[in-house]
Amino acid sequence: MEIKVVKQILAWNEDVSDKIHLVTSEKRIAIVNVMGSPGAGKTSLIKNIIDNLRGDYSIGVIEGDIAGMIDAETIDKMGIPVVQLQTDGACHIEAMAIENILGRFDLDKLDVIFVENIGNLVCPAEFNIGEDFRVSILSVPEGDDKVAKYPLMFATTDALIINKADMLPFFDFDVERVKKDTYDVNPGANIFPVSSRNGDGFPEFLDWLRNRINEKIKS
Amino acid sequence: MEIKVVKQILAWNEDVSDKIHLVTSEKRIAIVNVMGSPGAGKTSLIKNIIDNLRGDYSIGVIEGDIAGMIDAETIDKMGIPVVQLQTDGACHIEAMAIENILGRFDLDKLDVIFVENIGNLVCPAEFNIGEDFRVSILSVPEGDDKVAKYPLMFATTDALIINKADMLPFFDFDVERVKKDTYDVNPGANIFPVSSRNGDGFPEFLDWLRNRINEKIKS
Repeated sequence: MEIKVVKQILAWNEDVSDKIHLVTSEKRIAIVNVMGSPGAGKTSLIKNIIDNLRGDYSIGVIEGDIAGMIDAETIDKMGIPVVQLQTDGACHIEAMAIENILGRFDLDKLDVIFVENIGNLVCPAEFNIGEDFRVSILSVPEGDDKVAKYPLMFATTDALIINKADMLPFFDFDVERVKKDTYDVNPGANIFPVSSRNGDGFPEFLDWLRNRINEKIKS
Repeated sequence: MEIKVVKQILAWNEDVSDKIHLVTSEKRIAIVNVMGSPGAGKTSLIKNIIDNLRGDYSIGVIEGDIAGMIDAETIDKMGIPVVQLQTDGACHIEAMAIENILGRFDLDKLDVIFVENIGNLVCPAEFNIGEDFRVSILSVPEGDDKVAKYPLMFATTDALIINKADMLPFFDFDVERVKKDTYDVNPGANIFPVSSRNGDGFPEFLDWLRNRINEKIKS
């Protein structure tokens, strides 16, 4: 007998993501989805971005966590508007949560919102959250096989930060392998080896980031 | 400044799950959500259930997979109505997919639908799919630390099958540890060490399963 095949499409999530785009286009706000494993350096990256771009842009942050609010407290102390999103166990953020949160910000005053997704290499990449672009982080201690093993995040990201590059002498991590594996699934990826600790590689990433934000808010 | 905290509740998934319960209550059909890691033995369990219960109940199956339809072909060859659900990369099944699929079955003729969820210890447990109860599988080769490491599936399941029990002599797997860790998060769990290969433990599980199905369809 012919077997019926049904595709599960996360259609409602896509619908809400589209609604967010309408709002952020009208308000001229860029939303950046920041993804990576636990400990890859997502919060440090966002802090460094804030330090470097706060003179040029009005920045907000949404901190996604399964529980707690440690990272939100860090951002709050920098004087940046921040909302803590708690997923109560869920391994990813969905668009409806972001739509709900947008109303907690003064959108007329913001240029860009960074969303720190849940620390996880797999699930977050499955869900659009109304972002204009994605910045994913792979840190050197995680190993250079992660693109091959968990391709979706790397296939769908706009920028890939190879973080903790100052640790390269101490790990058997082949940057060229990561680049090759990423380009195989994502030929247009922008890859930036960066050290959040000493700042190496950061200026190149910031140039790219400014261009992408400006594309959205000055178009 | 006080930080705003927002909880992400997968509310639309819960709404659809509730709608499925209305349909299955009217039609007197039980839906069973079968969860476990890849290779834990979900398909073998469903096949054994079919062999043992097809004389008593009219059975349907929904096979969830990221891609492909190998397991659906296996079930189809048994002469059981089956629909293949492909999630196109998503690590779990959501309720809206099940609602969509229910219309592909002749619901007036079915007593119970087994849903084989995506092989994954983490994400599937986060999403109700309109099921009446859950059957989760942990197989001996996976190790006895999995309840402690990934508690959600074990905390939310109605029955836990400890599968491949015939392999216990060859693995350092402490059944009592698994039982203790499960009862810690789920005091009402029903735990069945089972060997799908030689049938040990299966009669006790089937007795429990019949009772749970009857509760729904004969109430």
